[in-house]
Amino acid sequence: MAVKAQVLYDFTAEPGNNELTVKEGEILTVTNQNVGGGWVEAQNSRGTVGLVPEDYIEVKTILIISFVFDLTSLYRALDEIRKLCGIIFSSVYSFDEEWDDDSDDGKSTGGYGGSQVEEGGTMQRAGGHSTMKLSLNKFPGFSKTPNPEVYLLTKHIAKGDERLPIYTGEVGPVWLYPQTQLDCVVADPKKGSKMYGLKSYIEYQVTPNTTNRPVNHRYKHFDWLYERLVEKFACALPIPCLPDKQVTGRFEEEFIKMRMERLQGWMSRMCRHPVISNSEVFQLFLNYRDEKEWKLGKRRAEKDEIVGVKIFSNIDPELPELDPAQVEQKYEMYSQFTRSMDNSVKELLAVGHLHWKRCTGPLQKEYRQIGKAFQNLSSVFNTSAYPRESTLTEALTATGKTYEEIAEIVAEQPKKDLHFLMETNLEYKGLLGCFPDTITVHKAAIDKVKEADHVVVMNKISQQDKLIMEKNLSTMSYALQAEMNHFHSNRIYDYNRLMQFYLEEQVKFYETIAEKLKKTLGQYTTM
Amino acid sequence: MAVKAQVLYDFTAEPGNNELTVKEGEILTVTNQNVGGGWVEAQNSRGTVGLVPEDYIEVKTILIISFVFDLTSLYRALDEIRKLCGIIFSSVYSFDEEWDDDSDDGKSTGGYGGSQVEEGGTMQRAGGHSTMKLSLNKFPGFSKTPNPEVYLLTKHIAKGDERLPIYTGEVGPVWLYPQTQLDCVVADPKKGSKMYGLKSYIEYQVTPNTTNRPVNHRYKHFDWLYERLVEKFACALPIPCLPDKQVTGRFEEEFIKMRMERLQGWMSRMCRHPVISNSEVFQLFLNYRDEKEWKLGKRRAEKDEIVGVKIFSNIDPELPELDPAQVEQKYEMYSQFTRSMDNSVKELLAVGHLHWKRCTGPLQKEYRQIGKAFQNLSSVFNTSAYPRESTLTEALTATGKTYEEIAEIVAEQPKKDLHFLMETNLEYKGLLGCFPDTITVHKAAIDKVKEADHVVVMNKISQQDKLIMEKNLSTMSYALQAEMNHFHSNRIYDYNRLMQFYLEEQVKFYETIAEKLKKTLGQYTTM
Repeated sequence: MAVKAQVLYDFTAEPGNNELTVKEGEILTVTNQNVGGGWVEAQNSRGTVGLVPEDYIEVKTILIISFVFDLTSLYRALDEIRKLCGIIFSSVYSFDEEWDDDSDDGKSTGGYGGSQVEEGGTMQRAGGHSTMKLSLNKFPGFSKTPNPEVYLLTKHIAKGDERLPIYTGEVGPVWLYPQTQLDCVVADPKKGSKMYGLKSYIEYQVTPNTTNRPVNHRYKHFDWLYERLVEKFACALPIPCLPDKQVTGRFEEEFIKMRMERLQGWMSRMCRHPVISNSEVFQLFLNYRDEKEWKLGKRRAEKDEIVGVKIFSNIDPELPELDPAQVEQKYEMYSQFTRSMDNSVKELLAVGHLHWKRCTGPLQKEYRQIGKAFQNLSSVFNTSAYPRESTLTEALTATGKTYEEIAEIVAEQPKKDLHFLMETNLEYKGLLGCFPDTITVHKAAIDKVKEADHVVVMNKISQQDKLIMEKNLSTMSYALQAEMNHFHSNRIYDYNRLMQFYLEEQVKFYETIAEKLKKTLGQYTTM
Repeated sequence: MAVKAQVLYDFTAEPGNNELTVKEGEILTVTNQNVGGGWVEAQNSRGTVGLVPEDYIEVKTILIISFVFDLTSLYRALDEIRKLCGIIFSSVYSFDEEWDDDSDDGKSTGGYGGSQVEEGGTMQRAGGHSTMKLSLNKFPGFSKTPNPEVYLLTKHIAKGDERLPIYTGEVGPVWLYPQTQLDCVVADPKKGSKMYGLKSYIEYQVTPNTTNRPVNHRYKHFDWLYERLVEKFACALPIPCLPDKQVTGRFEEEFIKMRMERLQGWMSRMCRHPVISNSEVFQLFLNYRDEKEWKLGKRRAEKDEIVGVKIFSNIDPELPELDPAQVEQKYEMYSQFTRSMDNSVKELLAVGHLHWKRCTGPLQKEYRQIGKAFQNLSSVFNTSAYPRESTLTEALTATGKTYEEIAEIVAEQPKKDLHFLMETNLEYKGLLGCFPDTITVHKAAIDKVKEADHVVVMNKISQQDKLIMEKNLSTMSYALQAEMNHFHSNRIYDYNRLMQFYLEEQVKFYETIAEKLKKTLGQYTTM
């Protein structure tokens, strides 16, 4: 299937690097999305193939949908053939429309074994940054970064229901947190089918702790929710990407398990967010009672007007107005922090990736070799015909087997501890990848307010307008502060939990090995 | 210093493998002894350089000795200069004559880091096999393998003092073991000097448990003892090589410590042998009272007539005579066993070597990186200005430091456990390398006895002679059996002790790490 992409910015190829020079607006055919290192391989209309930075292009989703329709026609045709021939079509043709663009290229998700994780590109849906860019581009009236001016000059006052208050908590400005925290369980993936059984899909059961009543959702519903959340909130709140469609497993079971685990992580994070979890669209997703309610709710959500920078109109900080200098200082601090943390998380992922590979590769092999060597020595000793041999040879064989067991323990360990560490850090990498875009909206607002004096002089806006802009900038800054405090509190919770879990498993790992070795040690004769 | 070597067997180079075709008797210049894999790089007289199997050549020690004399002249010249100029020569020129042929090429003995150990060549004095070959060549009257005929036809009856009885023990034929086992401590290396202080050497204190009176010996004295033992016993008892002269340390202290440790191992093994420990030359080495006694004893030992195959004349098995078929069967069994064990020991050494390198190389680096990554994350978290940060950042820093400590523990561990495993296996490799030559003497004896019938027919020997030969062959076989039983009993003792020590240290290693991780785990907030 050909994936088309539109070029967002001009890019000039560096000679000799196998790169492709592209112009803004040009349409490319993506020939390889798994190049890694932030690059994709693409072909231009003249047939030239080369590498393009993935952040410079926007994949055209519309073409994927048209492909789905093509497949649908194909299924209809196949069904006609089936009826005519009476041949039983098995699940060989089991496509889910949400899988249509998943190419199972045999990569395992279990081991962080491929370069995609290290490079950080494809593990997150089309790369952290570009997703946000892509989504922000959908905001009506903006071509690139959403223009905060639309909001800065409004005197809009938040209505009761949609009002997003910010309070002063112990840690500074905070969102209004609900009395009981929403959570949900994503479980029980079931295969459903359509199109006379030719087209199958996976439906996950999502059960919120509030109603305890499960609702069923397919990946494409999660994706729809994600799109709505980005549209509505991404200027104020970084919306982490959904687990990537590109994630593939060697086995369907492995793939489904991995996707479910990641959807759970994503949903839990959304549930924990006081603004998101309380939003109408999110509540709809968790609580709809029947198909009709779901469809009506969907239509309503898609027509929501308070999206993009307009979301700031709903924010109501009951706090003293900040002057632009304070706003800029905060902005710089958050910008710096999220950048540094992004680097640090990537470092941890790279190290974890290396360690994973070492444990499942050379270390496992080495412990197996050690085990083999002891067992071989034992076999040789057994041929000595010397009458006092058996205690030693039995102990040696047991030692050899113990080291073989250790080899397997070492190779299995990453799944037990490193997996969670990697998953959490991947989540954070995704989340941190959204911050630059969110923060850019704030930067643009600061710049607008800085320009305001000049604009007032030119009589384009009134002094009154300027004061409104400063008040609104202060509101935006409070939103960013509340969001950062939410992020910090979650981060501390997550990393505290993560590190404890990791260390507990590591302790068990070393203790298990010590115990096994102690047991084999007991088999030798004490002298 | 050019090392010369004589080719022992024809060798035809395989094309394209960088090998050198050589003829028996040809003299080569060794250009690189550290090629590994059982090969050395050498240059022939026509200047062609290529690889030759190390077992196919014999390094010419005579050339090394002439080099010693050259150095001696140099010292004399230097001393003249010193006297003339009044310049103080420090220990910069501190050569021991036993070190003269040690080139300190910066290799560490601590880590089995070079290829020489893996391949097993240079760690043992000129390679296990060739040493024995070289020594056996010194026996008067034999060009290659000592000719057992000299003994087979003797009617010599062992005299009281020199008699080496063989009894039937629980495990079969055994040597006569002393009531208390001899042992000694090699300790307290001291620098002595000669040649006006320009020439220094190391003297070790050797204290036997019998007299508890220390005697001083330099490496060259050990070497002299080794030569005597080979001359006298090597046809019947494999005499393990002395720790190699070639072993070099980055630091003099490291070198001396390593050599002392290995001399201790060698001496303990000799002490444990009932025949060797009881021999006049060995007793002299441990018990001489003054320089005069030592020098007289040395002269006596050098004039000993009962050397080579003649040693069998002293052996007196008080056991029923074996027929040649039984002898051959035993021979085959021992030959097979020692070969298999040699392979198995080499496998263990290779695996141990790999593991050593992994622990001190990539694993240490990786744990350091993990430690660094946690600490970096902690540093980033510290910049958040979020008020509830400190518990997590402190715990994260402690975790990072713990992983850095683990890195050092991992890198130090081989010295604690693998070192002893490697040393013991190296000792056994040396010992097993001597068996083929010892066993070859027996094989030659079997062949002679097989030929005997034919020789009797040709009236070259009498029927009576033939019976003597068979009786003597039986005696040789008992000697081999007693020696093998000695070997087995030592082997079981050594490997039992070794494995227990190794596993104890391994258990401690894993427990220490678990303990450290548990401690850092306690620093996180319980939620």
